[in-house]
Amino acid sequence: MDPYGLRRVVSPRGVLPQRADVLDPRLPPGEDELILDVEALNVDSASFRQIEGAAGGDPDRIGAEIARLVAARGKLHNPVTGSGGMLIGRVRQVGPGHPAAGRLRPGDRLATLVSLTLTPLLLTRIDAVRKEIDRVECQGTAILFATGLWALLPEDLPERLALAALDVCGAPALVARHVRPGQKVLVLGAGKSGALVCAQARASLDGRGLVVGADRSAAALEVLAQLELCHRVVEVDATDALGTMERTRQAGGPFDLVVNCASVAGTEMASILSVRDGGTVIFFSMATSFTAAALGAEGVGKDATLLVGNGYVPGHAELTLDLLRRLPRLRALFEQRYVR
Amino acid sequence: MDPYGLRRVVSPRGVLPQRADVLDPRLPPGEDELILDVEALNVDSASFRQIEGAAGGDPDRIGAEIARLVAARGKLHNPVTGSGGMLIGRVRQVGPGHPAAGRLRPGDRLATLVSLTLTPLLLTRIDAVRKEIDRVECQGTAILFATGLWALLPEDLPERLALAALDVCGAPALVARHVRPGQKVLVLGAGKSGALVCAQARASLDGRGLVVGADRSAAALEVLAQLELCHRVVEVDATDALGTMERTRQAGGPFDLVVNCASVAGTEMASILSVRDGGTVIFFSMATSFTAAALGAEGVGKDATLLVGNGYVPGHAELTLDLLRRLPRLRALFEQRYVR
Repeated sequence: MDPYGLRRVVSPRGVLPQRADVLDPRLPPGEDELILDVEALNVDSASFRQIEGAAGGDPDRIGAEIARLVAARGKLHNPVTGSGGMLIGRVRQVGPGHPAAGRLRPGDRLATLVSLTLTPLLLTRIDAVRKEIDRVECQGTAILFATGLWALLPEDLPERLALAALDVCGAPALVARHVRPGQKVLVLGAGKSGALVCAQARASLDGRGLVVGADRSAAALEVLAQLELCHRVVEVDATDALGTMERTRQAGGPFDLVVNCASVAGTEMASILSVRDGGTVIFFSMATSFTAAALGAEGVGKDATLLVGNGYVPGHAELTLDLLRRLPRLRALFEQRYVR
Repeated sequence: MDPYGLRRVVSPRGVLPQRADVLDPRLPPGEDELILDVEALNVDSASFRQIEGAAGGDPDRIGAEIARLVAARGKLHNPVTGSGGMLIGRVRQVGPGHPAAGRLRPGDRLATLVSLTLTPLLLTRIDAVRKEIDRVECQGTAILFATGLWALLPEDLPERLALAALDVCGAPALVARHVRPGQKVLVLGAGKSGALVCAQARASLDGRGLVVGADRSAAALEVLAQLELCHRVVEVDATDALGTMERTRQAGGPFDLVVNCASVAGTEMASILSVRDGGTVIFFSMATSFTAAALGAEGVGKDATLLVGNGYVPGHAELTLDLLRRLPRLRALFEQRYVR
């Protein structure tokens, strides 16, 4: 058994696949591996833009560069941006020692929820490069390790809709774990994960409590309010910690739980000042600075539990897809804004 | 009332004191402020080294540069390193609206537990620059806001000993909150905070459970073991995630709680791989990368609670000083290694 895929690491030896320079996607399947026939790569946006720029925007050259990268590294791990993406494929083979043995069958269609930076990949053909959606339709073989996350693509939801939600499914799932009825919850950032978090927090409150959505975009807030994903909205610049604290306090703060889904840097203090003493902040923003959070709370003597938003919570994919099924207005928002 | 000290911010207006370029340390005291007569500045090590280098190592020039910085900014906030330090002083005046009114009296001797980067400071004289301990003996006035943390210097412990422990007192206090009897605890890093965390974890287990100390230094581990601050020790390179997981597993892992007190970067995955599913990792290392922690856990499908080590927990100073009083061997270790 090899739950982290060490057998696939060619160089340097002994590191985890994500830190490896080169993986070997060919070896015979391990008994705890899941083998996929690849249909499409959803390339990370930063990576796609970099490759597109280097290729002068030409789809054929973009495809050739991606094929070259994958051939060289055994994975789609852009050395410039450090990022990958995810893929869609069908199950070819489930090793008897894989945790999904018995649950997954050949032909099942799924999306990987772990990064392409750690997914062994062998491409045999590039069929199409779709620049408008950062997608490469292709054929090949990919491998998931026993610890590698995946989600079955649902039959009752359009693929693009499902992918848009799965992309951030850890956020509502972790929020569901922390919200209790009667609490006051502030969500900073009204983008994709912010909207899902608002909806989940409201559902978890079960009719008792308060969800406030905050963003600098009045238009984004208007949508949240119209769809009734939260109780109140408030326009803030979350890089202005004091202004955010004051405005969210007028909207009902301080809060038991603050969920940071902002997409910009410098919003740690706004989160910390807006939570009550003894409350919890969950940081989902990838722009979060560890030291700004740790030292910021100490600097103002705030006793708050500060959580790194772990992208994995068991059942996160199904919870998030169910949220879209149960809330037609949330689904409509996703179809309008995130399904390109 | 002005719990964050906004009235002291000269420029830019509207930011918190830590982000300000200039503070005004002169204004008449606010009714919720604590005014101190300064005795000494304990300058942050990185800041002291930078100033020492720029001053060619000359104590008089170091003192002059510190006086110049404080005069220019109204605080000791080194613009090159971004860091400050803390100070020791005696209470001159406690505003009636300060939370310590009634508890603190003029003449009480205390150490500030918030950074000098946010502490309004006016120096009237530099008495001595003590390069060997990054300390400047001086006279002047400092101000603590209502949210600013402080600790009375205990009469039964030497000052240097108390300061060495207070420097990292948030770590054992947060660990005390999370450890339950019967648990298995791994502490990565056997330095100052690691030793305190081992001792507190062992105390919190109340005789049932396991504390394993891990470090790359056999000498540091030898001390932990001899002093019986933990049950077992294991030599690891925590930047080698897999090696650390394997070696700590042999010592009793996976663990309910992993406390990262390592002083080097790249130890997030070792922490995540060593904790059990459903367990908790507390990151105290200031070298922690937020994204490495968040994406690392997702990449290996680890359902773990990931905590940013907030430096403030109510009662943290007293808890840590009590630990030194109760454990003479821990105190001896601190006196040998950290009291310079």
